[in-house]
Amino acid sequence: MDQPSRSAGTVRPGGRTARVRAAVMDATQDALVEHGFHGLTMDQVAARAGVGKTTVYRRWGSRAGLVTDLMNELATQSMPHADTGDIEGDLMANALSVLRAINDGRLGATFQAMIAAATSDEQAARALRVFYERRIGEWAGTVDLAVKRGELPQGTDGGELIRAVSAPLYYRLVVTREPVTLEDAERSVARALVAARAGAFVMRDPGAP
Amino acid sequence: MDQPSRSAGTVRPGGRTARVRAAVMDATQDALVEHGFHGLTMDQVAARAGVGKTTVYRRWGSRAGLVTDLMNELATQSMPHADTGDIEGDLMANALSVLRAINDGRLGATFQAMIAAATSDEQAARALRVFYERRIGEWAGTVDLAVKRGELPQGTDGGELIRAVSAPLYYRLVVTREPVTLEDAERSVARALVAARAGAFVMRDPGAP
Repeated sequence: MDQPSRSAGTVRPGGRTARVRAAVMDATQDALVEHGFHGLTMDQVAARAGVGKTTVYRRWGSRAGLVTDLMNELATQSMPHADTGDIEGDLMANALSVLRAINDGRLGATFQAMIAAATSDEQAARALRVFYERRIGEWAGTVDLAVKRGELPQGTDGGELIRAVSAPLYYRLVVTREPVTLEDAERSVARALVAARAGAFVMRDPGAP
Repeated sequence: MDQPSRSAGTVRPGGRTARVRAAVMDATQDALVEHGFHGLTMDQVAARAGVGKTTVYRRWGSRAGLVTDLMNELATQSMPHADTGDIEGDLMANALSVLRAINDGRLGATFQAMIAAATSDEQAARALRVFYERRIGEWAGTVDLAVKRGELPQGTDGGELIRAVSAPLYYRLVVTREPVTLEDAERSVARALVAARAGAFVMRDPGAP
């Protein structure tokens, strides 16, 4: 066991607590790739990380706790939005980033495990909500830039346009369980962009006539 | 235990095997609403259904087996597509049908459980794929009718348009974990329709220039 009297936040980044966390996060991702969320066990993760079971149970509590912490970790590593100079390029960069993540064995398994955990665990659901809120907010910046450049109508909702590009890819991944290809990414961008140029992402004031 | 020498398919519909299945399917949905997929146990379902544990283990094997059979049952109850006379009405009917299902406590919990199960169980993934293949194929018929009426361009892909209307709703439900409202359904239809009228759902021959 590591020091029970210290919380993770008070220990220096390179210290034992940080090393234990890194090993456990790594072991959690390995286990998710191999067994998925339903097959993951705390004991398995402890053994793989070379960390005592007690430590894992005490610090993460449950497998939902493990994948939630992993999601929080991924949120801090999330990349800033693209800035290719035009909205088609930026939306394509968003679609490719989603495509790469979901088709990456390790990252894809992590997202699917998190989506599974969130269906029945409120802590996991909150971590997922926060992750995408942050990611969508970041990429919405590309739409604001496009509006400033005059590429899209004033009032175009950036978050909604980013959601529209990403949604069909996740839908195929976790709902219809179909392959998600480069063509799907290109189609999603093309369709969302046609609608956006026509003003379909301008949010109307609900009180307006 | 019911008769081990008879398979479900050889027993008359109103017989004991059918009654056991109905009770077990009902208990499975109850358990999903209360505990989600990760909290569901075979023993719980057996007790709730008033059926021996041995029967449940033997016929369904695992909780993934239970939700898979439930999904197959729901597939047979799936409704034919709307025919309101215009494509906007039909796409809205599709969006409302999705909205109702995911916001219905019982049905919504079932879909979320199924999506969770499919992330780590191939049998569940296949049941989900078959369910949506059938549902999307059915509703694609509304698009074919619209093309015949001249409302949408020749070659518009019905399955793709139906996916585009449904995807943003499921994305909010299971990925970003945001509320899914009537406004979301209306926006999804409006955006997909603008793109469809502009020809963004016409599938090009990959060999064409």
